[in-house]
Amino acid sequence: MPTPTAPLLNPRFMGIPTFMRLPHAETAEGLDVALLGIPYDGSVTNRAGTRHGPRGLRDMSSLTRTIHHRTRVNPYELATIADIGDVPLSRMYDPQGTADEIEAFIGAVVAAGALPLSAGGDHSVSYPILKAVGKDRPVALIQIDAHADTLDTFHGSPLNHGSPFRRANEAGVIVPDKTIQIGIRGSHNGTEVWDYSEKTGMRIVFMEDAVEMGIDAVIEETRELIGDHPVYLTFDIDALDPAFAPGTGTPEIGGFTTREALKLVRGLRGLNFVGADVVEVSPPFDSQGITALAGATLMFELLCHLAETATTG
Amino acid sequence: MPTPTAPLLNPRFMGIPTFMRLPHAETAEGLDVALLGIPYDGSVTNRAGTRHGPRGLRDMSSLTRTIHHRTRVNPYELATIADIGDVPLSRMYDPQGTADEIEAFIGAVVAAGALPLSAGGDHSVSYPILKAVGKDRPVALIQIDAHADTLDTFHGSPLNHGSPFRRANEAGVIVPDKTIQIGIRGSHNGTEVWDYSEKTGMRIVFMEDAVEMGIDAVIEETRELIGDHPVYLTFDIDALDPAFAPGTGTPEIGGFTTREALKLVRGLRGLNFVGADVVEVSPPFDSQGITALAGATLMFELLCHLAETATTG
Amino acid sequence: MPTPTAPLLNPRFMGIPTFMRLPHAETAEGLDVALLGIPYDGSVTNRAGTRHGPRGLRDMSSLTRTIHHRTRVNPYELATIADIGDVPLSRMYDPQGTADEIEAFIGAVVAAGALPLSAGGDHSVSYPILKAVGKDRPVALIQIDAHADTLDTFHGSPLNHGSPFRRANEAGVIVPDKTIQIGIRGSHNGTEVWDYSEKTGMRIVFMEDAVEMGIDAVIEETRELIGDHPVYLTFDIDALDPAFAPGTGTPEIGGFTTREALKLVRGLRGLNFVGADVVEVSPPFDSQGITALAGATLMFELLCHLAETATTG
Amino acid sequence: MPTPTAPLLNPRFMGIPTFMRLPHAETAEGLDVALLGIPYDGSVTNRAGTRHGPRGLRDMSSLTRTIHHRTRVNPYELATIADIGDVPLSRMYDPQGTADEIEAFIGAVVAAGALPLSAGGDHSVSYPILKAVGKDRPVALIQIDAHADTLDTFHGSPLNHGSPFRRANEAGVIVPDKTIQIGIRGSHNGTEVWDYSEKTGMRIVFMEDAVEMGIDAVIEETRELIGDHPVYLTFDIDALDPAFAPGTGTPEIGGFTTREALKLVRGLRGLNFVGADVVEVSPPFDSQGITALAGATLMFELLCHLAETATTG
Amino acid sequence: MPTPTAPLLNPRFMGIPTFMRLPHAETAEGLDVALLGIPYDGSVTNRAGTRHGPRGLRDMSSLTRTIHHRTRVNPYELATIADIGDVPLSRMYDPQGTADEIEAFIGAVVAAGALPLSAGGDHSVSYPILKAVGKDRPVALIQIDAHADTLDTFHGSPLNHGSPFRRANEAGVIVPDKTIQIGIRGSHNGTEVWDYSEKTGMRIVFMEDAVEMGIDAVIEETRELIGDHPVYLTFDIDALDPAFAPGTGTPEIGGFTTREALKLVRGLRGLNFVGADVVEVSPPFDSQGITALAGATLMFELLCHLAETATTG
Amino acid sequence: MPTPTAPLLNPRFMGIPTFMRLPHAETAEGLDVALLGIPYDGSVTNRAGTRHGPRGLRDMSSLTRTIHHRTRVNPYELATIADIGDVPLSRMYDPQGTADEIEAFIGAVVAAGALPLSAGGDHSVSYPILKAVGKDRPVALIQIDAHADTLDTFHGSPLNHGSPFRRANEAGVIVPDKTIQIGIRGSHNGTEVWDYSEKTGMRIVFMEDAVEMGIDAVIEETRELIGDHPVYLTFDIDALDPAFAPGTGTPEIGGFTTREALKLVRGLRGLNFVGADVVEVSPPFDSQGITALAGATLMFELLCHLAETATTG
Repeated sequence: MPTPTAPLLNPRFMGIPTFMRLPHAETAEGLDVALLGIPYDGSVTNRAGTRHGPRGLRDMSSLTRTIHHRTRVNPYELATIADIGDVPLSRMYDPQGTADEIEAFIGAVVAAGALPLSAGGDHSVSYPILKAVGKDRPVALIQIDAHADTLDTFHGSPLNHGSPFRRANEAGVIVPDKTIQIGIRGSHNGTEVWDYSEKTGMRIVFMEDAVEMGIDAVIEETRELIGDHPVYLTFDIDALDPAFAPGTGTPEIGGFTTREALKLVRGLRGLNFVGADVVEVSPPFDSQGITALAGATLMFELLCHLAETATTG
Repeated sequence: MPTPTAPLLNPRFMGIPTFMRLPHAETAEGLDVALLGIPYDGSVTNRAGTRHGPRGLRDMSSLTRTIHHRTRVNPYELATIADIGDVPLSRMYDPQGTADEIEAFIGAVVAAGALPLSAGGDHSVSYPILKAVGKDRPVALIQIDAHADTLDTFHGSPLNHGSPFRRANEAGVIVPDKTIQIGIRGSHNGTEVWDYSEKTGMRIVFMEDAVEMGIDAVIEETRELIGDHPVYLTFDIDALDPAFAPGTGTPEIGGFTTREALKLVRGLRGLNFVGADVVEVSPPFDSQGITALAGATLMFELLCHLAETATTG
Repeated sequence: MPTPTAPLLNPRFMGIPTFMRLPHAETAEGLDVALLGIPYDGSVTNRAGTRHGPRGLRDMSSLTRTIHHRTRVNPYELATIADIGDVPLSRMYDPQGTADEIEAFIGAVVAAGALPLSAGGDHSVSYPILKAVGKDRPVALIQIDAHADTLDTFHGSPLNHGSPFRRANEAGVIVPDKTIQIGIRGSHNGTEVWDYSEKTGMRIVFMEDAVEMGIDAVIEETRELIGDHPVYLTFDIDALDPAFAPGTGTPEIGGFTTREALKLVRGLRGLNFVGADVVEVSPPFDSQGITALAGATLMFELLCHLAETATTG
Repeated sequence: MPTPTAPLLNPRFMGIPTFMRLPHAETAEGLDVALLGIPYDGSVTNRAGTRHGPRGLRDMSSLTRTIHHRTRVNPYELATIADIGDVPLSRMYDPQGTADEIEAFIGAVVAAGALPLSAGGDHSVSYPILKAVGKDRPVALIQIDAHADTLDTFHGSPLNHGSPFRRANEAGVIVPDKTIQIGIRGSHNGTEVWDYSEKTGMRIVFMEDAVEMGIDAVIEETRELIGDHPVYLTFDIDALDPAFAPGTGTPEIGGFTTREALKLVRGLRGLNFVGADVVEVSPPFDSQGITALAGATLMFELLCHLAETATTG
Repeated sequence: MPTPTAPLLNPRFMGIPTFMRLPHAETAEGLDVALLGIPYDGSVTNRAGTRHGPRGLRDMSSLTRTIHHRTRVNPYELATIADIGDVPLSRMYDPQGTADEIEAFIGAVVAAGALPLSAGGDHSVSYPILKAVGKDRPVALIQIDAHADTLDTFHGSPLNHGSPFRRANEAGVIVPDKTIQIGIRGSHNGTEVWDYSEKTGMRIVFMEDAVEMGIDAVIEETRELIGDHPVYLTFDIDALDPAFAPGTGTPEIGGFTTREALKLVRGLRGLNFVGADVVEVSPPFDSQGITALAGATLMFELLCHLAETATTG
Repeated sequence: MPTPTAPLLNPRFMGIPTFMRLPHAETAEGLDVALLGIPYDGSVTNRAGTRHGPRGLRDMSSLTRTIHHRTRVNPYELATIADIGDVPLSRMYDPQGTADEIEAFIGAVVAAGALPLSAGGDHSVSYPILKAVGKDRPVALIQIDAHADTLDTFHGSPLNHGSPFRRANEAGVIVPDKTIQIGIRGSHNGTEVWDYSEKTGMRIVFMEDAVEMGIDAVIEETRELIGDHPVYLTFDIDALDPAFAPGTGTPEIGGFTTREALKLVRGLRGLNFVGADVVEVSPPFDSQGITALAGATLMFELLCHLAETATTG
């Protein structure tokens, strides 16, 4: 069984940087949770760079350890976990081809009985992931994000990083009235995005609402909305304020602190997770590495949840 | 009528970076609101660099769009707005000459019937701006800032970035008991600055007071103090904490978050604005661009207010 | 007639950053030379970021002035020159569509009788430019570059930044035996690229050859090869060593110094230029701005040549 | 008597950077408070760099001035204060030898009747400091930190930056039930650290507890726990969130804001301080200097306390 | 047989970053050349950071490909090559213990019949490497470096990064009169280092001599000196000028260009290599990654030589 | 007698950073050579930042040691040398007042019989320095620089960093036909600067000329021109190429390498120096510190010369 390579003894700068310094597995066979990267940013609307996200997250993930300081969960004792590498993209200039490759790869993870925890890449990657995890039964969706990402098209392309959840809804792989979008903010060139979310039954918790309600109330509402429905969680790092996550392509000021984000994610423990992702970490804009550190630490929080779900579900 | 060049269709990295990718106008004639830069930092007491502020703010302002996500105001539909370029400074080593040139330029904007929204430059630029906008009738002043900036002289100069509001008060262009200074903090080498503000009737809301009162109470007190008096708002980016705005010359830890700053500015909607500025953004100390992003987004918030004032006033 | 806005009097950080602080013209009508940006990096094989190249080059181009210190040429006196903005791309996820838009835009410049001086963007943009300038008569090509860029396809795409000159040759818009590729170096995964260049008659001057021959000999050979044939010059900034140009997507150590590059370009004065470009400047990897400065200064050198050609040709 | 060199008149970038631009004294004789640096990071478990901490803190400390804006305390009027330079380490590869040299140096400061205010260096330096200040009577300890630092050994060494307070407790120089550790968070590879603190009677206030209780309650509990016992305060800059203090070796997201940290430290005014330190500032990871600024400003807050204690104690 | 994972098809930012994206092997058994990292900087005299060198070099090594553009050598076709990970250091605070672990690890590589190509780490690592490769027969040494590194002790330690070649000579594992030190420069606090090298028969080629002689003459002299003696090559990245390699701990201006370094290394083709290393790459001081790129490209040059030696020797 | 504080034993990051870690002296009395800073950049025409030059140079000067590796000169044994701090500027907004203060300060150094070695600051500081050193007898001038700096006025000011040598010539403190300007390059907005230099008899060695002649010939011509006339050397760091010195306000590509600069300066050994300066190092644009390192190393080279002149002259 893969286990993390004795990180108490090994200094954190040592070794080939896999996710959490876990063993590298060729496939998801035999795993409870599979960590993987999707180095694709061909669908961004502004600054590129998230193609380097998986490497940046792998590197900083060395700073996480094994036992959660609040829950005392050790995911590596609970579950069999490995880094299965990156989705081997072979058509990087072709958004549809890329989406197909991602869907097939995640499909294989699901078929192997493992829960996928993916590191982006831009947010467009969540659409093919959702197609794979929601193939048999549409899933509930918790989206922590500055943008609703329910745009129709941009520059003629239905597959861009502003559109994944519109596409997922059209494909029938998410349940719109079990979809909650938390942290939404920033000006737009039309009301289309917000209107689409609302008219299809998605719940938008604008950033200002989240602050006013308090994180506890957001957690409670989310848990109530989702219940025990199979649920996917997508964390766009731009949900965080740029002070906490400067390294992203479309930053919006006025966002979450990491303390709030950790609390929010932690409060969702015990839901029936089918997978999760952390996307939009862009190392070229992250000169001090704090965005990748935030992303990697959030991946550890999510990994604790997935390990519990995978082994008790 | 100038309108923003279809930013939904154009990627944000495209095109010559005017403010908000607006058309460039030669003068303020026919405009409701004029955006302009004042690339001057000859009056700083510590680190220079805000001479590059207008360019930094123009570049990052491409990330703002047209419709405000809370108020649903679209300033570009309400009002005629353009970028009228930078004040053409020709005596950059001469603080008084520079102040005269700024005053004349803003005077022309005012004479054209437009509201000026200026991007600094160091805070000394607010004094000549106030001379122009308060020429006929002294204005109320909302100053969001880490420093009271009511110093007498520094290195023999009455025109430095620690003195603009003392000068403005002496010139009779602001109403001291309708002046509120919010976010003041940091050690000083004398009590002169705080004493001057207080003895002339200005209201200092020290940072700690603002936190204790809460932003809602600060907004309420400000609105009550100002009423419908013509009011000018100056936002020194160092009011923000250095985590949110590292790119400035005299940072002071313990400041506002961008979330608080947005809420504070937004809460002042409907006041009788005669103009506004965002100053002290210093690109050489802003390696990840988040200071310029914060400044540009605050300019968009202020633009919404000015567009409403200009067209309903 | 557009002229640079008195840069001797205006400090270089002042004003909206057009190329060389020139006037912005809507079209190339009436111009001898048109400067323009192509903010496209959708065809890179490694690190993206050159979409921000035109803005970075415009900003640093403020540091150039009017009179060349060796030739005493003042291009702004010789010729009518303006910044005509960026190619208005509207299909940024579609390499072919983008290429068509670039070709049409440059076609209009050529039709207006102006010589295009373009700022990339990744190197894929040179192919549609060559289709426009070589439409009626194939042109000679001087390519200063670390890579021969005569690859067939990458990830299934014939339009990528490793392939433009193969495509141009196939399209019959360049003359292969009047094509010279200078500075080529770095390992490859096949000999295909070098083989294609050589077997089609292109002259590869590997970096080591250039050093051994000396710049004077490279100039001489180039001039001899080209003669008075209409010639296009493309300067990939990665021809420079990463010490001189760190801000690029596929850097290769062991390249030209800026001193050699200036000498080489300067030595080509008087050729029958039909246009030129400087590509692959990537601001996200250029934290100190020296790559953009090198690119902008090389654009000024090329502008001197184009101004002479345009007005004496 | 040493006094700060007229910082109102001198620009802050001027002069050789001693702490707070104070005079440099050869020894602590005649001083009430001695500022000093300990440029040692030989005991870190992850990223090195705090050897440059004293220089980074000295440089940014120029931004502090003389009068505290809330308490109106001017420490330089109350007490005689100087920069006594760095501990002259001569065995930097030998953790025990280094610890002995630090202990001897601080011992001399204490013997001279001065309170030491030290700038790290990594957190291992607090152990020998505590041996010196707690030599005659064990001291209470206020530790503001992300990590409890009560590890036994790492890589075979009992002297590492994760172990100082276990060593101090074993040496009998701190009172464990008058020890409070505030801000603790982050995953671990065992529960050993938390267990040791708790079973020896130390009070751990995990970060989440601190947030829930509120800073006021943390202050109150701390004051109650300590009473008038002689107390040492150690501030590990990683107690702050990485957004506020990116420049440190083992950052943990979800930490304190500078506003909270200032409030917490300020709330401890009047305790019976025997010394203090600010450690783990790592300039190579602090590209914008905000970590050093936070550290230097916290040193000024602590200096106000020490000056009061030294002169009224 | 391990082969590089199809780098022509895979974009270079994709996948877990092993050296040259080679397969990861657990041991050197069956390999002709073993690439490995030594993440140790506990012996530096100035700035630390080379502990992160192996990761930085692995990441940038993705930019190298398979076929050398001059020699047309493809090392991966010639030889069996893999990344065998980092030396698993377990006593990082103990210079002697660390040296023993490195010696044992390299000893196992040698025993397996593979040639080691190591990535530092600080230069102290070359001493235990030389003990392993020169165990049975002292080796000739080609040292390309700014410093002779024949110091006796620093801070009481005989094992520091200024001393490896004095130790190696004392241990009888190098042949001093077949040792050549190329690129030496910079002021010193004594003449001890230069004197030791010279009096023991080592050849120092000071930087100024190398320039005056020309690289060709340096190559010739080196080849003549070494003949067919088994030879180890150590490349300290600070041999390069800081413009080409800013990311190192003790930079000295006036060094080699990468062009010269490539020429020098390439000129040593065919010698009887027993191993090589590239040391002193320090990512925290390499914000644009060009130092790691230079180091990785030099590793590729050396790999070509080692692959030839391993398979023809 | 002041001596450097045992830098062989002290690690270079230790201690308060004076120049070369020398003792700090209050005045130049008793010194042979006085090192000093002039933190003034109020006269720049483009990017500010050199006000931080003295601190940046002091910090990096710790990397220099005592014995020159080529000449084996140890300036600290030859001469009495100290850091006398910064010129205490008190009128930083007043170019004329500042010039007067610099002149008076250097005048006192000269009166004390010490040779001044100054660290800028922008190049305007050389004019008042020359007034002090050339007061009794006009001096010869060796100016290594990208710009001739013989402009008349900029923005109405005769005191700006483009004019010092015109002013010095007008003041009769330099001998124009014993003035040589080496490395001049870059476009200009008029020929005024070059014309003035040439018509007054100054020798301009344009960069291209210097390359063509070779450094040896430049040295020879300079020595011949100067003879044994008292001579001042001013080194503007922008004489170096931006790859070697990115941290400066008006960089020009195509400049000297550090190797050439070291050779050039070293070749001037034995001239009758009356002082020297290194100016225009701008830390805010020098993120990796290599510009300050180059500047500090050049100061060491000059210090060797001055120490010889001071003690043998």
